[in-house]
Amino acid sequence: MPFPTRREALRDLLRAADLDALLVTDLVNVRYLTGFTGSNAALLVHVDGDGATRFGTDGRYRTQAGVQVPDLEPLIERATSFALAADAAGRGVRRLGFESDHVTVDAHVALGEAVPGVRLERAPGLVQRLRRVKDTDEITTVRAACAVADAALADLLAAHGLRAGRTEREVALDLDDRMRGHGAAGPAFETIVAAGANSAYPHHRPTGVALDRGDLITIDFGALVDGYHSDMTRMFVLGPAADWQRELYELVAAAQAAGRAALAAGAHVREVDAAARDVIVAAGHGERFPHGLGHGVGLQIHEAPALSATGTDELATGMVLTVEPGVYLPGRGGVRIEDTLVVRSDGPDPLTGSPRELLEV
Amino acid sequence: MPFPTRREALRDLLRAADLDALLVTDLVNVRYLTGFTGSNAALLVHVDGDGATRFGTDGRYRTQAGVQVPDLEPLIERATSFALAADAAGRGVRRLGFESDHVTVDAHVALGEAVPGVRLERAPGLVQRLRRVKDTDEITTVRAACAVADAALADLLAAHGLRAGRTEREVALDLDDRMRGHGAAGPAFETIVAAGANSAYPHHRPTGVALDRGDLITIDFGALVDGYHSDMTRMFVLGPAADWQRELYELVAAAQAAGRAALAAGAHVREVDAAARDVIVAAGHGERFPHGLGHGVGLQIHEAPALSATGTDELATGMVLTVEPGVYLPGRGGVRIEDTLVVRSDGPDPLTGSPRELLEV
Repeated sequence: MPFPTRREALRDLLRAADLDALLVTDLVNVRYLTGFTGSNAALLVHVDGDGATRFGTDGRYRTQAGVQVPDLEPLIERATSFALAADAAGRGVRRLGFESDHVTVDAHVALGEAVPGVRLERAPGLVQRLRRVKDTDEITTVRAACAVADAALADLLAAHGLRAGRTEREVALDLDDRMRGHGAAGPAFETIVAAGANSAYPHHRPTGVALDRGDLITIDFGALVDGYHSDMTRMFVLGPAADWQRELYELVAAAQAAGRAALAAGAHVREVDAAARDVIVAAGHGERFPHGLGHGVGLQIHEAPALSATGTDELATGMVLTVEPGVYLPGRGGVRIEDTLVVRSDGPDPLTGSPRELLEV
Repeated sequence: MPFPTRREALRDLLRAADLDALLVTDLVNVRYLTGFTGSNAALLVHVDGDGATRFGTDGRYRTQAGVQVPDLEPLIERATSFALAADAAGRGVRRLGFESDHVTVDAHVALGEAVPGVRLERAPGLVQRLRRVKDTDEITTVRAACAVADAALADLLAAHGLRAGRTEREVALDLDDRMRGHGAAGPAFETIVAAGANSAYPHHRPTGVALDRGDLITIDFGALVDGYHSDMTRMFVLGPAADWQRELYELVAAAQAAGRAALAAGAHVREVDAAARDVIVAAGHGERFPHGLGHGVGLQIHEAPALSATGTDELATGMVLTVEPGVYLPGRGGVRIEDTLVVRSDGPDPLTGSPRELLEV
């Protein structure tokens, strides 16, 4: 069971911050620390150990809590976080951390009124910091999610699912169905299928526009498996690629290869971002790469660390990240190439396995 | 264009709160006030009118902002809300309201540091208050979303989609596909299909469990159309209903009819909740109805007002609400019946139209 281990790792951070306990209200963090998947819960992690740690949820989830969180004493109450804080106050907690990057201003005021004797301390991102490095179980699950996406894409191509006349939306739904068929709970995010000039929008949403011969097509998608996400972008052309499409592709492919090669334990995220960005800047397209190089992937599709020019992290073994440079030419089209990889001591380990070349279909 | 009208209505609330401007950061509220559908935006609504009001988003959405929000001057910046607040400070705003039910403690601290000369005032729920009453366009869209769900359910039944051997998950995905086929962007929320004893969980998620003869089956689902949601729950039995199933159904149907009948302009939400709840309490099942009677529906699947024993609203013409009492018998099964309705001066107008009886299939 990884959950007690994760809570113990969190306690080291609490001690370093001189906190008696942390009130965890971000549901993703609650899931990470307990395995609970319901829609209302909170967790009071006490530095003294699991004996003093309480899991809270409401009456709808009493049974589910017993199954998923058998090792913590439950507190069943609709206003979960207030109840946990009051319970902690009654048991001597004086310095209580809260997730100030998640708790709203109004909720914080109400919490303060509910436990007047407790000192509430801003403690943002503690669990997110732990979540950056994945354990073996997590990597296995992300790998499975990536394999589902690979299999769904291979099926789509084998079934000639990318063809003139189909709309972006039809292709996206087809891919989503195939991911479910391979065991995904669903897509990891809204699948992007962007054809022709639409590929110049980094976050295009699929429309009723039909694919046409000569179109450059971006497919950016992932699978959700047991709460973990995968993320991959592949590029296609309907028919033979034009010279400008191939040149753009080769540029982004070179940048992506540089980014992947830079993905080493100990590297600073700014260096990794720069390794890929420099290739694009040198080609005169720096302005056409308007986003960061990548992001952590796990229980959320976007999580720490960010691979960007303003990032502050150093990479470590076990981090799972995307590398996804892009160049977007308004009115013409864009190219993005993306993989999900694990940082290993001996170099990056790609979890996404679909062939990476520009595919003419 | 309803958007200038909505912003003008908001200004009345700002004046009443003695605010120079409101910084709108909740994306749903930004959409309501501008029509913008991207994933990063904020809006600074100035009391002086649209000439002093600014829409902010980042470079990815420059083109989309020009199309969707042509009537407001855009401010293109990654850190949208800080940029808008600084811009407002530079133009003389001194009392700036912010959505304290949405802004986190950390974001509030950073905002205060970004605009030291501005007094930040908690102003929760102002746009939500406006959103309670739908205009004609909104009601038309929710009606369309309800019609999509009705059509999808009729198709499912006509195709004998509810039959022994199919899993809950298969039925849910089938219904989702049919909603898309009728024009939905997707389901309004994760479709609930709960068979047999699973129907005793109000928020059951579809599993690989197969439907079986004699099962009581709950289907709670809705369609998403142009950003607006629908919400409906219908009950089925595979084969002839057992006496206890029919009795439970009749009880909940009577409670739902009482709740619908109480849905009148001027009624307090507590009265409406009580009208339905009293029927269930009188039958000795008060403890088995562990949730509120209903909720507003619109740009969000759950929005104000809440129909519950702790609610504080009075109903008004144009509000769109669900009425969904339920009784859940652990280990046996549960019944919930739900419609989406508009409050009219001459009584409730149901938007969901599927036959409401317990259907034996």
